[in-house]
Amino acid sequence: MSLLITNAMILTMTGETVTPIHGDLLIEGDLITAVGEVPAEKKAQADEVIDAQGMAALPGLVNCHNHAAMSILRGFSEDLRLMEWLSQKMWPAEARMTQEDVYLGTLLAAAEMIKSGTTTFADMYVFTDSVAQAVIDSGMRASLTRGMIDAPDGQEMRFAEARALFEKWNGAGDGRISVMAGPHGPHTCPPAFLQEIFKLAEEFNAPLHIHLAETTEEVEIIRREYGLTPTEYLKEVGLFDHHVVLAHSVHLTAGDIEILRSANLRGGIAHNPVSNLKLGCGIAPVTSYLQAGLTVGIGTDGPGSATTLDLFEEIKAAAWLQKVQTFDPTALNASQVLHMATREGAKVLALDSQIGTLEAGKKADVILVDTHAAHLRPHHDLTALLAYSANGADVHTTIVNGEVLMKGRKLTKLDEQALIAEIEERAKQITAGI
Amino acid sequence: MSLLITNAMILTMTGETVTPIHGDLLIEGDLITAVGEVPAEKKAQADEVIDAQGMAALPGLVNCHNHAAMSILRGFSEDLRLMEWLSQKMWPAEARMTQEDVYLGTLLAAAEMIKSGTTTFADMYVFTDSVAQAVIDSGMRASLTRGMIDAPDGQEMRFAEARALFEKWNGAGDGRISVMAGPHGPHTCPPAFLQEIFKLAEEFNAPLHIHLAETTEEVEIIRREYGLTPTEYLKEVGLFDHHVVLAHSVHLTAGDIEILRSANLRGGIAHNPVSNLKLGCGIAPVTSYLQAGLTVGIGTDGPGSATTLDLFEEIKAAAWLQKVQTFDPTALNASQVLHMATREGAKVLALDSQIGTLEAGKKADVILVDTHAAHLRPHHDLTALLAYSANGADVHTTIVNGEVLMKGRKLTKLDEQALIAEIEERAKQITAGI
Repeated sequence: MSLLITNAMILTMTGETVTPIHGDLLIEGDLITAVGEVPAEKKAQADEVIDAQGMAALPGLVNCHNHAAMSILRGFSEDLRLMEWLSQKMWPAEARMTQEDVYLGTLLAAAEMIKSGTTTFADMYVFTDSVAQAVIDSGMRASLTRGMIDAPDGQEMRFAEARALFEKWNGAGDGRISVMAGPHGPHTCPPAFLQEIFKLAEEFNAPLHIHLAETTEEVEIIRREYGLTPTEYLKEVGLFDHHVVLAHSVHLTAGDIEILRSANLRGGIAHNPVSNLKLGCGIAPVTSYLQAGLTVGIGTDGPGSATTLDLFEEIKAAAWLQKVQTFDPTALNASQVLHMATREGAKVLALDSQIGTLEAGKKADVILVDTHAAHLRPHHDLTALLAYSANGADVHTTIVNGEVLMKGRKLTKLDEQALIAEIEERAKQITAGI
Repeated sequence: MSLLITNAMILTMTGETVTPIHGDLLIEGDLITAVGEVPAEKKAQADEVIDAQGMAALPGLVNCHNHAAMSILRGFSEDLRLMEWLSQKMWPAEARMTQEDVYLGTLLAAAEMIKSGTTTFADMYVFTDSVAQAVIDSGMRASLTRGMIDAPDGQEMRFAEARALFEKWNGAGDGRISVMAGPHGPHTCPPAFLQEIFKLAEEFNAPLHIHLAETTEEVEIIRREYGLTPTEYLKEVGLFDHHVVLAHSVHLTAGDIEILRSANLRGGIAHNPVSNLKLGCGIAPVTSYLQAGLTVGIGTDGPGSATTLDLFEEIKAAAWLQKVQTFDPTALNASQVLHMATREGAKVLALDSQIGTLEAGKKADVILVDTHAAHLRPHHDLTALLAYSANGADVHTTIVNGEVLMKGRKLTKLDEQALIAEIEERAKQITAGI
């Protein structure tokens, strides 16, 4: 099977800055095999052709931190303080969620992500068999974790599920699923518990995915418990010897940043600007992270907090926040923030050998953004328009692993309206009386 | 002509909080004549029926501060410092803009606004005959100003244009156009110049529209010049005796807020969160403004700075910023921020007797937002979904003054693709060599 995309404005995302090239892109099987110029005989042989005149071709966006199944609770509990939100609303509702709910919630999230140009997401949740099955059925690429909290009971079950996720799903879906180990956070994982999880990660040669310094409360808890910052605590336990995805990382000190810098950190930070704003957590010092040479990707956090999974919204928010935090409109420019949502995100998730750029030999995760719209004109600067004006609804076509998951805004594998009807029914039952 | 909207989830925006009601809405001529329940004989007689099953009906959004024609410069000059942006890019390009460019730029902006649910915008620009003609031709509602700067030459011409705007266009388009007097800002308008503009406003019994405290540089200029804050300066000159639209208002002190409170300010603040972020200006203390009882609407600023004119994006950004500025996720909740974009914006522009809510007797400015999409489900809380998940592309139908300007995402009066082709041509000429 070969798919030819013609006449596109191609953003390969391979350079330091972004320079769109006009040309064609060839996909054969699950791989990109030519970018820019495609040999005439290959063009003639293409099984399918998409005319991308007036469209930008980008690597599929990479969402570095999600709890996708929480889409079933989207909007259930808004404008509340974090602990009230969790204890009175989210936890009681989540306690009622079944395997089937997690499957449906993840599918709903997948529909939204495909429609807004995300092709890969990193997820942390429970009922991970259901999450993985939804990834398989949706056609997306994902890096999954079973979230691990040190709690008095159920420990054996959690480790068994985390192990099963590796054994059953790592590499599934023609390699679309990868698996990470998922200690929840410094305040929910004491040292011995973390060490157990490190062993699991080492056994499967896998990265780790953890929340870090999302709130000042977390920082305070770790200070009281250990007399350390969360980053210092994780260094002492040895986390930074592993490839690690550090979600949030809002409240890091200069010393913390130096720890990460001098650790020559593999992996990096999953920045979730909208969730951090919406929950009133703070603004992560992304500019400082980049200055320290750290790798920063972008995530949405769960749709229970961020409310949407549209990475174009996060791209804008990420740039805006650094500009206002530093009072410098040149901070985090359009090129940088688009790189964060593609190539850099792939590095954070240890998937950069497969995805994140448009290059021959990479997996064919490609999106086409249609610029035939007033808000994406005129074309003085396509890169800036994609970073600051585009939104998820401008995505025309989404391709993962060579398979077209959306074309002309129509999903090809998922029945969005049927899914919505099911979700409405289940959502009512989950939240009734809470 | 009567238009019946059936089966909608109606947000009238009349109460303290938002409670969607399921029902019908009748438009006769340019007026809303029934909301919720429509008499059976009226339903039977409707000339046109829109089935809004699964759609939310809201008052058309009100953009309180724009320089619409700058859409022709969208993305031309990104990620630059304000003075560099203005002096090296915007001003040289604007100096080349003709009446025709302003007409086309305003039409492009109108296309974008109609497609993202904005029905009314407040504008400040030059070549205001062209701006007004574009408003007439687009079908939108607008409150226009000729921006006034005290400069050594051209003073007479500017006042003549400002006067002509009132005489020729106030009330034009079946009342869709209203006119305000437009002193540019404290740092560009000395006292005697402001007094001249006040006289103009008084002559036509019109509100004023001014920039206020957008940057710390402006605050510093006024402090050096008068030893006052910009707000203190404007109080001394007597601005607050008039109905006034205060655009930006980022850097106001507690004393400044007290001045506005005790003035029982008519009008209010046009908050432009995205522009303020993107230009690195700061975060306006909106929560403090609301606590002081001030009226706050939302604007985009010109598309040269904010990059888009999607008010749904500004709605989200406004809420996010107050939550993170106060570290309180309950700050500026979904209901409040939707009110700011509708009813409160209408108050700021002195148009609240005509628009801003869905009530019998109000002008028929109505939008339908389609919720048949993954990111707007499930419906735990429609108000939160509209504030935090919706974007401009979810708007299905836009009606202004009883006329359908967009239906099923198709513009009815404007040819978007033809306009884009013209704009691309003109944009190249304007910016060539700059």
